[in-house]
Amino acid sequence: MGTRTSHEAEAADDAVNVAVNADITADVAVIGGGVIGHGIAFEASRAGRSVVLIDDAPGSGASWAAAGMLAPVSELHYQEEQLLELMLESSRLWPAFAAAIDAAASLETTAPGSATGTGYVTTPTLAVGADAADRRALADLRLAQQACGLTVEPLTVREARGREPLLSPAISCAFDIPADHQVDPRLLVARLGELLDAEGRNSFVRRRAAGLLWEGGRVAGVRLTGGGSVRATETVVANGLGAATLDGLPPGLVLPLRPVYGDILRLRVPGHLRPLVTATVRGMVRGVPVYIVPRQDGTVVIGATQREDGPVHPHAVSAGGIYQLLRDAQQLVPAVAELELLEATARARPGTPDNAPLLGRAADPDGGDVSGLIIATGFFRHGVLLTPAAAAVARQLIDGTSDPRWEGFRPDRFSRVPGASGDSPTKEAA
Amino acid sequence: MGTRTSHEAEAADDAVNVAVNADITADVAVIGGGVIGHGIAFEASRAGRSVVLIDDAPGSGASWAAAGMLAPVSELHYQEEQLLELMLESSRLWPAFAAAIDAAASLETTAPGSATGTGYVTTPTLAVGADAADRRALADLRLAQQACGLTVEPLTVREARGREPLLSPAISCAFDIPADHQVDPRLLVARLGELLDAEGRNSFVRRRAAGLLWEGGRVAGVRLTGGGSVRATETVVANGLGAATLDGLPPGLVLPLRPVYGDILRLRVPGHLRPLVTATVRGMVRGVPVYIVPRQDGTVVIGATQREDGPVHPHAVSAGGIYQLLRDAQQLVPAVAELELLEATARARPGTPDNAPLLGRAADPDGGDVSGLIIATGFFRHGVLLTPAAAAVARQLIDGTSDPRWEGFRPDRFSRVPGASGDSPTKEAA
Repeated sequence: MGTRTSHEAEAADDAVNVAVNADITADVAVIGGGVIGHGIAFEASRAGRSVVLIDDAPGSGASWAAAGMLAPVSELHYQEEQLLELMLESSRLWPAFAAAIDAAASLETTAPGSATGTGYVTTPTLAVGADAADRRALADLRLAQQACGLTVEPLTVREARGREPLLSPAISCAFDIPADHQVDPRLLVARLGELLDAEGRNSFVRRRAAGLLWEGGRVAGVRLTGGGSVRATETVVANGLGAATLDGLPPGLVLPLRPVYGDILRLRVPGHLRPLVTATVRGMVRGVPVYIVPRQDGTVVIGATQREDGPVHPHAVSAGGIYQLLRDAQQLVPAVAELELLEATARARPGTPDNAPLLGRAADPDGGDVSGLIIATGFFRHGVLLTPAAAAVARQLIDGTSDPRWEGFRPDRFSRVPGASGDSPTKEAA
Repeated sequence: MGTRTSHEAEAADDAVNVAVNADITADVAVIGGGVIGHGIAFEASRAGRSVVLIDDAPGSGASWAAAGMLAPVSELHYQEEQLLELMLESSRLWPAFAAAIDAAASLETTAPGSATGTGYVTTPTLAVGADAADRRALADLRLAQQACGLTVEPLTVREARGREPLLSPAISCAFDIPADHQVDPRLLVARLGELLDAEGRNSFVRRRAAGLLWEGGRVAGVRLTGGGSVRATETVVANGLGAATLDGLPPGLVLPLRPVYGDILRLRVPGHLRPLVTATVRGMVRGVPVYIVPRQDGTVVIGATQREDGPVHPHAVSAGGIYQLLRDAQQLVPAVAELELLEATARARPGTPDNAPLLGRAADPDGGDVSGLIIATGFFRHGVLLTPAAAAVARQLIDGTSDPRWEGFRPDRFSRVPGASGDSPTKEAA
């Protein structure tokens, strides 16, 4: 449906410069033009490095279907404390990251709560439940969130509807989550791409990476499909699910990525219903999550479906998923029925066995780390939130330092490589 | 969403020849490139006339969102006997009409039940109800259908599921309707456009008609927006809702057309579920109609919503409408949840006060009919079924004859023009 057409159109719009069959040299080669790849490339460029970003369709993967919720609190899952720490760290980095983008783009950083060039807004999130069981589930989750020091305040239904008049009076509960914010991932990719392009030393290669280029026992760049290569001091693998099948990964390194499909809808709010909601509404409807994210342009994004079953083809939009989203969203905000459907999009997110990213350097059989290679994939549902943290981690590694707090996210933790940690940072809930 | 993009792409595909600012002369000028305009143009061309078809976006209006059910029996409404007569006549004309298209296109006319170049298939329709009230409603409708001499045979749920194994076991009733068939309206428009183009004497003007051209008290052709005109012996107004606002309609002629919006979904059936259904399934779910029309290419069309409320913009697809279609279709065929959504499209159909078309010549204040002008609009839900009948009626009028059976559909029946009949052919139900 329109999804493919529109992202292709967008992709064509941010075409900047394309090198074909040329051998390019840069300080940093980034494979993958989603939010993570763009964020890392931007941070490296800000640090004065020359960057080549390699992707045949930048921003068209999981980032294209991301709602952009920056939600460390709402996304807390039991037994994922180390991931929570990374999410909170990234949440703390977001204001400066967004401000840096705006400053670089010569946009004025606007007041908290108002949109910037990336659609970054710090309005709170509202968690609401549909029935009594949803209320119990959200109240239980709140206990876990509070145990982690997170702020989640109960509201009466009357208070919630005072803030969001179009919420159904039949909701069972509401909670205010002031620390969960949002950004528009498509604007984010577009802005970062523009800023990268504005630096003459950077370039874009609109091709797929075929594999890693090795030289003298270290990674020396990227081989491109159809010939040609990019030579770089550091190569960052940030192409999501594609990372696992890249040629020339270090011997023994296994990147256990699995596709987890999600459907999102984008809808236009007719004038008489604007704003449909002012805050991001995260609902639990008969145990199933659904979110309604308002955008500054008078549209809303509705999503939350998560399908582990493979679809007919990678971008197939499930009729059942769309039905469920519309049903559940209407139960929380009945006026959703009056919106105009603009787009239905499905994409696969790169999931890992412990739902945490594969982020850092990989072990070398000789006991050290493979030189010239940084892995940054497996961000699953958290890629947009974790973009500033991933960019900071990658920048440290490029600079020759590292933060011991994030050692547990090493990409070789599921591999049997001598020197790999082998430990999962976050255990699956029992 | 994708709908607009895809129809524009299709429209570009059947671009044939475009005349700009040229004064063209032909025997017949047809304003409007939907199924009706194309059908009339094809019939006139077969009769040896030179034809100019005028439309800035052929096939992109109501025809684009038509499911193509040829369903005189299912579409029977109380108190619309004269319309039923026209629908049955058109249904009888369909096999020869489809065969003529195939023959002209040098396609072999295939066996009954198999697809042709227009997707015309004569497999029966299955009417099914969801609950006990739906069963009573369909049984009552069957009495009315039988009173009109139509064949509607009850099936047990077991028999229905023997024919269509993916029907829900929870349906309340099923009826076999052997006389209701289907065609693919997009293929129909494309084939007719190709055949018109194959005759060197015909041409296409990819522009909007501004109004009628008068000369010596008769209509002498069409004025085009942006200048230029088409001169013709006969001008056929077949541009749906646009007919009412055409400049230069005969004095006193009122075409009381109103937009009635409909949403349709097009979905891909995954291989393991093919065929989802072999027959068109027309359901009644808690009193609301929904249909599932299988296409030969492994897709299905789901539709039936009918909204008299205006949408946000003419092609806006209603979230509530789509939700309802998916909900009701899944209730009849649960596997609909596993389909892939390809397209959601909304269009306005031209409705009239008595739901019957405005078809024929219009009265002249002098007592006769306006020369050189034929109106063919207001086909509402029945444009595809009525295409051969409209083409036959127009051909007779062009040839100087007429069929008294269709006098009641005169386009001036709602106007106070001397000589107009003033009578509605079909009364609204009390």
